[in-house]
Amino acid sequence: MEQKLIVKMVLDSWNSAIARTGKLLNELTDEQIAADAAPGRNSGKYLLGHLVAVHDRMLPLLGMGEQVYPQLNEAFLGTPDKSGREMPSVAALRSYWTDTNERLATHFNNLTAADWFARHTAVSEESFAAEPHRNRLNVIISRTNHLNEHLGQMLYLKPIPQEA
Amino acid sequence: MEQKLIVKMVLDSWNSAIARTGKLLNELTDEQIAADAAPGRNSGKYLLGHLVAVHDRMLPLLGMGEQVYPQLNEAFLGTPDKSGREMPSVAALRSYWTDTNERLATHFNNLTAADWFARHTAVSEESFAAEPHRNRLNVIISRTNHLNEHLGQMLYLKPIPQEA
Repeated sequence: MEQKLIVKMVLDSWNSAIARTGKLLNELTDEQIAADAAPGRNSGKYLLGHLVAVHDRMLPLLGMGEQVYPQLNEAFLGTPDKSGREMPSVAALRSYWTDTNERLATHFNNLTAADWFARHTAVSEESFAAEPHRNRLNVIISRTNHLNEHLGQMLYLKPIPQEA
Repeated sequence: MEQKLIVKMVLDSWNSAIARTGKLLNELTDEQIAADAAPGRNSGKYLLGHLVAVHDRMLPLLGMGEQVYPQLNEAFLGTPDKSGREMPSVAALRSYWTDTNERLATHFNNLTAADWFARHTAVSEESFAAEPHRNRLNVIISRTNHLNEHLGQMLYLKPIPQEA
């Protein structure tokens, strides 16, 4: 019972951050996403590609198959923004974002509560015996925190509200 | 067993965000904190005061006593930044930040795993019977997300790294 409850609490929190980010992306034009979140900081495009790559890599980490977009790793994980690596268009990244999170949601729906408390693939059976918190659900907690941190930054892509 | 495990997972995630924010604040001067996170956006001072007020209000929400700094509510919760409300100094806010999170940590250490799954004070016994996820632990999940969102923004208070 409590297992199921806590899985709901953690997934609700993940889904809420995914939904808020999706809503923000819908409110922004491609040009606004291509701009820097603040002067001299990461562009919204880089942040979006970074989030797609990090979420795409949750597939192997959670034992749900291979990455679908490994070609994003170099530009969005291996190197910082403005390093000259070729990036997909904002339109392509929007579609990867939706696709990746829908794919994860489909996999998540197939897991039982007990599956969530099983180890993720980056921890060995031996280590997991001593560190049972390194389970699939902890990956969601960690990635939700990561998403919220960058969502806070991407909110700065919105036009500054004018004084009344 | 799983109750205790999930409490550890959620509190680790909270403590990690608190520690990262504390480390950032230690790296910033008062002047850097007083500046806007990005042009036309909230100042670091407002964000810090906002986080203190939100965390201070966790005390009554979690049934751990009254707010200690209710005088912050108007400037940091009731009105946006730059609304002309008087704010404490950055030095004072730094000390309230440390104090508030230490007070919460002391209370958290006194809770059993079962206490974390009990309802928080904003939900009635009747509603809680139907919505058992509205427990104390869910408040920590929610406030960790909130903190990470603003931490992402406060990272922009740091000087922009110079090109090599």
